[in-house]
Amino acid sequence: MRALILAAGLGTRFKSERAKVLHTIMNKPMLWYVYQTIKGINIKEVAVVVGHQSEEVKKVFEGEEGLLFFHQKNPKGGTADAVLSAIDFWRDYQGYLLVINGDTPLVKAQTIKNMQRYIHLVEEYEGVRLSALLLSSFFPDPTGYGRIVKDPKGNVVKIVEEKDATPEEKQIKEINGGVYLFYCHHLLEVIFSIPPSQASGELYLTEAIGLMSKKGYLIRSFMAEEQAEVMGVNNRWELSIAENVIRLRILEKLSKEGNTIHQPETVWIEPSVVLEGDVEIEPGVAITKNSVLGRGVRVGRGSVVENSVLEEGVIVEPYSIIRDSKVKKGAIVGPFAHLRNQSVIGEGSHIGNFVEVKASSVGKKVNAKHLAYIGDALIGDRTNVGAGVVFANYDGKRKHQSHVGENVFIGSNSLIIAPIQLGSYSYIAGGSVINKNVEEGDLAIARAEMKVLKGKGKEKLT
Amino acid sequence: MRALILAAGLGTRFKSERAKVLHTIMNKPMLWYVYQTIKGINIKEVAVVVGHQSEEVKKVFEGEEGLLFFHQKNPKGGTADAVLSAIDFWRDYQGYLLVINGDTPLVKAQTIKNMQRYIHLVEEYEGVRLSALLLSSFFPDPTGYGRIVKDPKGNVVKIVEEKDATPEEKQIKEINGGVYLFYCHHLLEVIFSIPPSQASGELYLTEAIGLMSKKGYLIRSFMAEEQAEVMGVNNRWELSIAENVIRLRILEKLSKEGNTIHQPETVWIEPSVVLEGDVEIEPGVAITKNSVLGRGVRVGRGSVVENSVLEEGVIVEPYSIIRDSKVKKGAIVGPFAHLRNQSVIGEGSHIGNFVEVKASSVGKKVNAKHLAYIGDALIGDRTNVGAGVVFANYDGKRKHQSHVGENVFIGSNSLIIAPIQLGSYSYIAGGSVINKNVEEGDLAIARAEMKVLKGKGKEKLT
Amino acid sequence: MRALILAAGLGTRFKSERAKVLHTIMNKPMLWYVYQTIKGINIKEVAVVVGHQSEEVKKVFEGEEGLLFFHQKNPKGGTADAVLSAIDFWRDYQGYLLVINGDTPLVKAQTIKNMQRYIHLVEEYEGVRLSALLLSSFFPDPTGYGRIVKDPKGNVVKIVEEKDATPEEKQIKEINGGVYLFYCHHLLEVIFSIPPSQASGELYLTEAIGLMSKKGYLIRSFMAEEQAEVMGVNNRWELSIAENVIRLRILEKLSKEGNTIHQPETVWIEPSVVLEGDVEIEPGVAITKNSVLGRGVRVGRGSVVENSVLEEGVIVEPYSIIRDSKVKKGAIVGPFAHLRNQSVIGEGSHIGNFVEVKASSVGKKVNAKHLAYIGDALIGDRTNVGAGVVFANYDGKRKHQSHVGENVFIGSNSLIIAPIQLGSYSYIAGGSVINKNVEEGDLAIARAEMKVLKGKGKEKLT
Repeated sequence: MRALILAAGLGTRFKSERAKVLHTIMNKPMLWYVYQTIKGINIKEVAVVVGHQSEEVKKVFEGEEGLLFFHQKNPKGGTADAVLSAIDFWRDYQGYLLVINGDTPLVKAQTIKNMQRYIHLVEEYEGVRLSALLLSSFFPDPTGYGRIVKDPKGNVVKIVEEKDATPEEKQIKEINGGVYLFYCHHLLEVIFSIPPSQASGELYLTEAIGLMSKKGYLIRSFMAEEQAEVMGVNNRWELSIAENVIRLRILEKLSKEGNTIHQPETVWIEPSVVLEGDVEIEPGVAITKNSVLGRGVRVGRGSVVENSVLEEGVIVEPYSIIRDSKVKKGAIVGPFAHLRNQSVIGEGSHIGNFVEVKASSVGKKVNAKHLAYIGDALIGDRTNVGAGVVFANYDGKRKHQSHVGENVFIGSNSLIIAPIQLGSYSYIAGGSVINKNVEEGDLAIARAEMKVLKGKGKEKLT
Repeated sequence: MRALILAAGLGTRFKSERAKVLHTIMNKPMLWYVYQTIKGINIKEVAVVVGHQSEEVKKVFEGEEGLLFFHQKNPKGGTADAVLSAIDFWRDYQGYLLVINGDTPLVKAQTIKNMQRYIHLVEEYEGVRLSALLLSSFFPDPTGYGRIVKDPKGNVVKIVEEKDATPEEKQIKEINGGVYLFYCHHLLEVIFSIPPSQASGELYLTEAIGLMSKKGYLIRSFMAEEQAEVMGVNNRWELSIAENVIRLRILEKLSKEGNTIHQPETVWIEPSVVLEGDVEIEPGVAITKNSVLGRGVRVGRGSVVENSVLEEGVIVEPYSIIRDSKVKKGAIVGPFAHLRNQSVIGEGSHIGNFVEVKASSVGKKVNAKHLAYIGDALIGDRTNVGAGVVFANYDGKRKHQSHVGENVFIGSNSLIIAPIQLGSYSYIAGGSVINKNVEEGDLAIARAEMKVLKGKGKEKLT
Repeated sequence: MRALILAAGLGTRFKSERAKVLHTIMNKPMLWYVYQTIKGINIKEVAVVVGHQSEEVKKVFEGEEGLLFFHQKNPKGGTADAVLSAIDFWRDYQGYLLVINGDTPLVKAQTIKNMQRYIHLVEEYEGVRLSALLLSSFFPDPTGYGRIVKDPKGNVVKIVEEKDATPEEKQIKEINGGVYLFYCHHLLEVIFSIPPSQASGELYLTEAIGLMSKKGYLIRSFMAEEQAEVMGVNNRWELSIAENVIRLRILEKLSKEGNTIHQPETVWIEPSVVLEGDVEIEPGVAITKNSVLGRGVRVGRGSVVENSVLEEGVIVEPYSIIRDSKVKKGAIVGPFAHLRNQSVIGEGSHIGNFVEVKASSVGKKVNAKHLAYIGDALIGDRTNVGAGVVFANYDGKRKHQSHVGENVFIGSNSLIIAPIQLGSYSYIAGGSVINKNVEEGDLAIARAEMKVLKGKGKEKLT
């Protein structure tokens, strides 16, 4: 079997400058999912028909080998014109061509495998070769879809579009899913005879079915396991619906692998994420890109973990954001914490509320529990960063680093002005501005003397 | 056609001091939606029957012209009593009266237009005048609803309530939607004959149907396009369900207009909001009141935009709250930022995490990226507000303003005590308390000298 | 009636070290819900079959009286083996035994009451005693479930598992819900004759039905009111679905009691929470454990209230976290506030954004509206805590308390070093480090003198 992906369309109903197949589902282009399906069936010979924004479309396949690209000259030529654009790919092929649209991201690999198997079974048991097999589904309300018209024996006679359907045909509930397996030689016999649509001038691939049937060729339909599979994505509302289907598939799989996900309707986990088991995901959480969550990790309500690694037993309290960072075993982050730019939080450390850690590396058992900004710093084990502490890493022109040793105590509301070094066991008195290095074991203090004006307080307040 | 809205009811099942029709859906009273439907059909003559909390109910129509109000004396008089209260409105009218309950916010204008059209078609093609047309729907489980009893020809004979229904009538799946078109003269003939309910003493409008039918008048039912349309809202759970229906209608419309909405179940966008296209809304977002979001705006997970304007290309990072403010082109807000009280953020500025901006105007390319409070301040272009900076706008008695020039650098953890002026290119050293104006280009510093006590740190910590 | 709960299973498909019945739904073990159902029917004699992690399973019933526990020796013995393990509990009982699995948390007490009543009605009107009554449901797609095979009179003949079903039996849509009422004497007659499953060697209780029927005993099925009731929870995805069912049941009940809940799909309220009426819950909110919310409380989007009391009229702004604390009448908390460790917020106080209050007691009409950490403090009425204020409660070794009087003004970015006392009407100048007590009415200030270096600012910046 060979596979041909049609990805040349404009998608005008998306009202977007971007090509339809490039709109994303769970942060991956719609087209990526179609390609994953094809990879899942293990087809080696794959071609893609591109047209609108062809360079961007090709990028979806970056790093993939052996793909052929064909260019559809007329982006409004229609699906049959798209298949014709790639005629060199299938004209001489002694087998079946899978034709799949780039806007059908929900078709499952297993379904197409089952279609292949069905063709074999028909050949084996009925002794006939199918000229085409169409993916279909039964819709209680088929309004708007192409209907599959069959003869009394159950063979497909034609596909009729809603607008061309007779009242009787409109009663048909079996609709065309837009995924086809064509026996190439038979497709070749009819494809040049497809007449342009009177309404749009386009050449529709669905017409090939009627032509084949008239020639006496045998065509069948194959019912999709899930209704969603045959859903095309024609506007951004359908995109949202398709995204939900894929999102829930991912969550179902992760759940069944032994992770607990609360209120799945509210949770977002992208396909590239790894959960290593016994992970607990609270409602409203998002885990994205190449994040890896170790065994027993718990992610609290509303937290966002983007492209980050959380080792075994890490607890993320609600409404924390962790981007491009790593949190080591047993550390606690949040609530309302923000880690970013390749930060590393050491084992058993606790980064608490309203604390931002940027491009910093924090050792083991470090506490920074309240209102602090740790930027461009290296912090040793067991150090305590008080509430309101700021690492001033920017002087108006450039950024500098801070180096803090182990077991350091940085009192609250202190300002640590980089570049600076604070030795191990040093102690920074609260409210100090530290702009010179402090050596190991020393105490640094920078405070104005406290003065009291008797009775002046009440005076100011009354 | 004239329209009569029944809005006098108590809604005891809401268990609320507020009248039922005043309970809100997407921040607008339920009754507001019914009125929007009527405006959508372009009916000029509209009357409202009020009763319970009549003054508050009338306020829903504030600013609307030409409305008549009728007062139902007995709030427990029933629907027919309510229609009788407004008899002066329709007694002499040579046409149809739309009677609609204030608790049916889901009926679509198009549906009522279709009902009107149906009446005309029956007149034209069947040569008969309908005395009443009822909105109905087919419910797989009709338990609890009034059933529509028809004769073999399909004309309505009566409406029977659940409790009065025979076993055969209980099998009827067509239920009464509580929206009626009455030919006024015929309604007048029967309305005084409606007997009070034995159970409640109320006069039910549904009884008029049976009486009309007995007189030989022709009554038909008209099936709603969507089941939800006929749903009355009788308790707060049904209110939640109705709110969901309206919420999803809004989101579907915005999507189809070319905006991308992720996980629509979790998103809240009120009917008065404008999205100008290519807007991307992440899960959990709320956009309320008269907010306007320009092309290409992206609103991150969980953020709240209330009554605010976000210009083209603005990025709101997750968990930010923007109220009554304006964010100009290309600015970035958040994560965890809070703008309020008519704040303005200039083009390309970045307000970052744990930063609150209140009643302040911030120029272009200003950075305030970490843990800061900017209150009652005017800040010039390209100024940098460090981490932990506070504009102290309150002295215990009154509020004061701060004026900051362009290209100013305010070092971290500084305190700027208003009223104050910081000239352009001035530089505030980190950790300073600034209580006097700083002139253009000057550097201000207020720091105690740093002292070091050798070995004292380790002593305190061990 | 007696009740026997089967809670010995491993639940291998949960892929967890924890026993299946201990996995939680809305923070309570699945098994807890089964027991609540039984309590709801008012059955006094209840036994539990335990096996895997029996000690932990028994803890679910801690504090409950009169329960008997039986130990199933072979955790893979099957359901009939489990019932046999408890044979002493029912062997001599002249009545019905309810057998219910610990993994069916969705069965309603009312349903089992109805089953009881049905047995009585059959006895009374048909004059026969049922030997067993099975809870069942009709599933459009029954794949995977045990089917209920009936004779032409509608009596149950046997239960057949999917894998053993003939093509005709597979067409049956009535499925076995795994909840049984057995007449004990008849169960005793057949239970020892149950053959081990050829596939697994387990003894299945479903076999008892076929054996009873062969003896000529009468068995009926009873349709569950809700499909969900018969849903077993066999993996963590089904756990998520069951949690959703229970979550929505709680929310529906609270709504109908007169509370407004927006976007119920996104809201989490645990079964032990009390809402006292007219409470308004915005989307994404979680209310857990023994929280009590007084009349008219409003909880904003995404906030978490854990084990806390919010008195009448309290407003929680979005994204606030309140744990183990109390907020008194009319106080406002948030947005982005965090209260914890038995904090108390007084009447009419306002704790604002990026403020953490830990183990502190705050009086009436206190304002702490921006970026502050209040830890281990007692604060009197009408005191104002400025932006950026930190109560330094930790000195690197131990924690200390602060006592602040009434009408105190604590200027922004001040550091209050505990242990300390600030008298009433005292005034702390902004940016001060306060490490000595301040007496009533005094003003304390600790600031370095501000110096200006002419032209130096521009120099540093350009």
